[in-house]
Order: sequence, then C-alpha cells, then structure tokens
Amino acid sequence: MPLNPENGALAADALSLSAHGGRFVRACLRRPVDRTPVWFLRQAGRYMPEYMAVRKHHSLLDICKRPEIAAEVTITAAEKLDVDAAIIFADLLLPFECMGLPFEFQAGEGPVVHHPVRTLEDVERLRTDKASELIYVAQAIEKVVAHFKDRLGIIGFCGAPYTLASYMIEGGGTRQYIETKKFMYRQPDAWKQLLDKLVTVLTAYARQQVEAGADVIQIFDSWAGSLSVEDYREFVLPVTRQLVREVQALGVPVIYFGVDTASLLPSMRETGADVLGLDWRTPLAEAWHRLDYGCAVQGNLDPITLFAEPDLIRNRVENILAQAANRPGHIFNLGHGIVPGTPVEHVQAVVKFVREYKPATL
Amino acid sequence: MPLNPENGALAADALSLSAHGGRFVRACLRRPVDRTPVWFLRQAGRYMPEYMAVRKHHSLLDICKRPEIAAEVTITAAEKLDVDAAIIFADLLLPFECMGLPFEFQAGEGPVVHHPVRTLEDVERLRTDKASELIYVAQAIEKVVAHFKDRLGIIGFCGAPYTLASYMIEGGGTRQYIETKKFMYRQPDAWKQLLDKLVTVLTAYARQQVEAGADVIQIFDSWAGSLSVEDYREFVLPVTRQLVREVQALGVPVIYFGVDTASLLPSMRETGADVLGLDWRTPLAEAWHRLDYGCAVQGNLDPITLFAEPDLIRNRVENILAQAANRPGHIFNLGHGIVPGTPVEHVQAVVKFVREYKPATL
Repeated sequence: MPLNPENGALAADALSLSAHGGRFVRACLRRPVDRTPVWFLRQAGRYMPEYMAVRKHHSLLDICKRPEIAAEVTITAAEKLDVDAAIIFADLLLPFECMGLPFEFQAGEGPVVHHPVRTLEDVERLRTDKASELIYVAQAIEKVVAHFKDRLGIIGFCGAPYTLASYMIEGGGTRQYIETKKFMYRQPDAWKQLLDKLVTVLTAYARQQVEAGADVIQIFDSWAGSLSVEDYREFVLPVTRQLVREVQALGVPVIYFGVDTASLLPSMRETGADVLGLDWRTPLAEAWHRLDYGCAVQGNLDPITLFAEPDLIRNRVENILAQAANRPGHIFNLGHGIVPGTPVEHVQAVVKFVREYKPATL
Repeated sequence: MPLNPENGALAADALSLSAHGGRFVRACLRRPVDRTPVWFLRQAGRYMPEYMAVRKHHSLLDICKRPEIAAEVTITAAEKLDVDAAIIFADLLLPFECMGLPFEFQAGEGPVVHHPVRTLEDVERLRTDKASELIYVAQAIEKVVAHFKDRLGIIGFCGAPYTLASYMIEGGGTRQYIETKKFMYRQPDAWKQLLDKLVTVLTAYARQQVEAGADVIQIFDSWAGSLSVEDYREFVLPVTRQLVREVQALGVPVIYFGVDTASLLPSMRETGADVLGLDWRTPLAEAWHRLDYGCAVQGNLDPITLFAEPDLIRNRVENILAQAANRPGHIFNLGHGIVPGTPVEHVQAVVKFVREYKPATL
C-alpha cells in the first residue's frame, strides 16, 4: 500500500491506527500512534530454529531467489515474534549479479566478490540495464503482502551506494576499508561513476519492491560510520541524498540506517530520509536532540544485550522508551542485526516489554 | 623524567619549550607550546621496511621481550619520522602471561588465547603477583630514554581493563563482543573481580615503565566503543577511573584512547585522564567542545587518508589543526594505528605539514 507521493500525508492519516502496519508507517511519518511499533533488524536469521530448518535444504542465495521460500522465511519470523513490521528476506549484495559482478557466500567467510572493482574500466563494465533480473525479490514481497494484508508494515530494502561500493571494491567484508577509501581518494571520477550506477540500479530495484506492495524502503548504509564527517559529506552524501529522493518519489517513507554514525547523524539527516536508524552507541535522546527532532528515529538496543537476563533487558528497553518520551516518530528496534545464538525467547520478551511499557508521566 | 606528582605543574614549566619531549609533555598538560607536537599510533609497524627487516629474524613477541631489539625498533621509527614522541614497542596482551594466561600470535589471525576466561573459577586462577616478569618492557624504555635523553617524549603504555578483558574472554579479536558482554551482564561479580585484577597488574606494569623513564602513559581502551554509554558507565568507567588515578599518582600524565567513542567521550573524560585520544569519526572541534575543553586531545586523522595523494592529506591535516585553533592541549596523531601498506613518505609528509602549518589568524 504505497502512499501517493502527491498526498502522502493524507493517505497516512487514513491508515488504521491500531493495525500493526498502520502503526509502523505512521511512526515513520511522525504521526501519533497508540503504542511504539517494534521490529528487529535481521529478525529472520540464524538465531531462529525455523530459519535454520529451511537453511538445511537451501543456500542463502537460494532462499533469496525463490519467492515462495523468501516469503515463508519472512512471514514465519514476523509471526513468531509478533512484531509490527516484516522486512523482506534478501541480501544486500543481490544487485551485484545484474550489474555483472557475480559473488558467492563462502562458509564462515561472508560474501566474496571474485573480481573486485578497482579501476575506471571495472566501473565502466558494470551494467545498469538489467535490474529487472531482481524481480524475484518483488515477487516475494507480493506473497508477504498477500499474506499479511494491512496487518503488518512490509519493508523492502536495498544497500546504500557507499556500503555496496565498499563490498564491490574490497571484494567482501573489511574492517579498515583501505581499498574503498583509496579508490575514493585517488579516483574520484570513477568513484562518482560507480555510485551513480548504483543509484540507477537501486532506484529501479526499490521501484519493483514498492510496486509489489512494500510500505517502506530501508536503505542500509551499514558501513557509512567508517568515514570521517568530511569524507562522508564530500564523497557520499550527495549521491545518497539523490537515492533517498528517488525512492521517496515512489511514494514511500525511507529509513536510512548505519552503525558507528554518532558524528554523522546531522549529515545523514541531510539526505532527507524520513527515519534514521540509530546504533546502540548513542543514547536515543541525545541522537534525536542532535537531529533537532527533524526526522523519525529507529532503534537502538545493543543486539548483544539480548544475551542478558530478562530483567536487565527490560531495564534497557524501558530506558530507551523513556528517552523517546512518547514523542511521535520512534520505532523500537535494535542498533544492529540479531546475531546467531541469541535466545529467541529474549527477542519475544522485548516485544512484550515494548507493548507493556507505560510512560511514567501517564 | 616523570614529573613529581606533588608539583607536576612546576616541573612541567621547567621543561624546555623547544625540545620535542618538552613540547609533547607540555601539550599533554595543556601548557603553551611553540608548535603542535606530532606522533603516530603504531609508528613502528609493518608499513615500515626497517621494521620488516627486523621481523624477518624475530617474532613479534621476541621483539617485545628483547629490550635491545624493542628499543631499536622504537628508536628507528621515531627517528625516521622525526616525531616529537616515541612510544615503546610492545604488545597490549603482554600482561596476560604473568597472569597465567598464555597466548600466541597465529599467522594472519592476530592474538589467540588458548584458554579464554569464561567462569568465576577462571578469574580466580589469574595471578596478580607476577607483574615483575614484565620488566623487559621497562628495560627497553630505559634504553630508549638513554638514547633520546630529553629530546623526545617517551610514551609507555598498557591496555585498559575493558579492552584486555575482551581479549581474555573472547580468546582473541572479535567484531561483536558477544562473550565479553554476556560475561559482563551475567556474571557481574566475576567481571568486577577480573577488572580489579587487571588494574592491580596494570598499575604495577605502568609503575615499572615510569620508573624506567616514561614521560607519559597511554592507556589503550581500543574497543570501549563497542559499548553503549549505559554499559560503559555501569561496567567499565569506575574501574578505569581507578587505573587512571593510580597511574597519575606515579607522576605522569595519562592519555586514554579508544575508537568509536563519539558518544562515550564525556564519560571517558570522567576517568580524569589528562588527554583523550580521538578517532577520526568525530570532528576534533566538535569532540573538544563536547569535552568542555576540560582535557587535552590527541588525534585525529583517518589512518587510511595516508593512502591519498599528498595534496588531499595536507588539506585534511590543516583542517584538523584549524579546528584545534592553536588552543593549548592538542597533540597531532591519527585516529587509529598506521596500517600495513601505508606509504612511509606520506607519514613523513604529515610531520612536515604539521610543522609548516601557520594558523590563518597569525
């Protein structure tokens, strides 16, 4: 149920206040809700037995590319946790294939791009006209939408230009971003072309997802926090702002997320995203204040806190909710994805704590 | 030349303004200097051919444990870069051995602790009475002091309780600190005992280094930034404050350093450290302002910027110096250690740029 871009506000008001989906989308738009909506980054993942049962028979990419399985995994997690939003099960790197950059997941290694992008010629070879090959993600979204109707908010997603470029250039995960930054500093024209190509493909990809029924698009700039503010503003912000605007023009709110972003937040706000996803390092009240309350915020429990005893978890959850102070525009979430080994019942407990929370002032 | 703790200020004033060592120590104490002092985290390391030549014949631990070689490596790097301070070549994990926790470096893997600390019994087994075994570090410092006299500031160092505890508990490096935080949340008494034991050993270790002639002690809390502010304040700040005070009581200024600490800085200041080391994520002016200019600051060029062309490096260096605005108490450094592959001549260029910098207002 994408909002009409011309009258998004009106359409949002028409959303039911009590349905999960309405609650979630309204919070993205900073409209009043009956209670804080909650969902979890990587809520369908290896910590969950139902997911592992599917993984026994299917590789990660296999799940992503088979809409019925991707939808099943998405739906199972959202129902088991009883959250307000379902994020489509997919992988950040899927668009690489249609750009002519195959990759695979190696056991315990994360993604590996066999021919990393290192030169202008490498960038020039990347295709931008084959985004239609990604349609399997939209098909999975259609199935999830058909299942939940308006009961849950449906989140589509894509990677942000910087984070995807870092995988392309490093050839996989990295701690130091040496090749990425070297490329950015030394080949600024090729860098610009690479990020522009990513925006073209990501816009088409987001369009497919919105047309399939995604209510919101989350843009993962997971590794933006590796940049100084100066570098972010010079090399990343302009093209990211462009992507955010293109996606918003499709008629949906945008959540823009990264980790280690405490110092970047005011610059990230300049992308115009409706919601900024916060990691756990910045107290929510401090982050929102630094953003002049100019956007909604999502977060920000440390995912590792889910390994603590429930009493401590409840204390942390309530502290975050107290910081949000019932201000419209807070979506409860973690500060990063749920990790393998997390007790499922602790994740479920968080949903309960969020539901049961009563602000001290009421 | 440790300052007398009773009259540190007086002793500092007596330091020569023009000698490198005086310049560096004076900046730590926020006294006026003729120009900003500069040194580099991990200035003796794998990026430097002279260091690699030594590594051909000696393992990392071998270098650390042979005072003449550790001193040579320390001296060579400081002289080649012509910096204002020399940090003793050593490894953060050296104190583990004298606590009864052997470790080794595995090729390409970083440190590996074979029997990680996971239970109260593991903590109880750790010894605190054998710090004298670490004397080889102090012996190396003596040699460096004898070489440089007062020409350079000599920095001793140790790990901070949290960062060392994380290596002990994880058994090596980690991205997510799952075992560390699980231990901290679920076994708070054992956690407290572990950190107290570390403070005992680290204080003795720092004392040896100061008695050998270290002018300043840097405490590396490299991974403190993995914590939320709430967890840092509850589980880490009190014991870290205690260590900082114990070291200051030895008569030297303390530099306290970590990465990803933008949101932690005001809490880190509460340790009472004389200098806070900043990573590159927070603009220096913003960080210093958030600290109410209540301590000196060290930093904060992104180490990966050293791979850029000299013009861009100069621009970034000058921007940092402009932010410091000639205020007493800035030591120029990187935001984290120099990485392998960094062009040595670019590191040397930074020293030159710092030296040549003329504030716009003069």
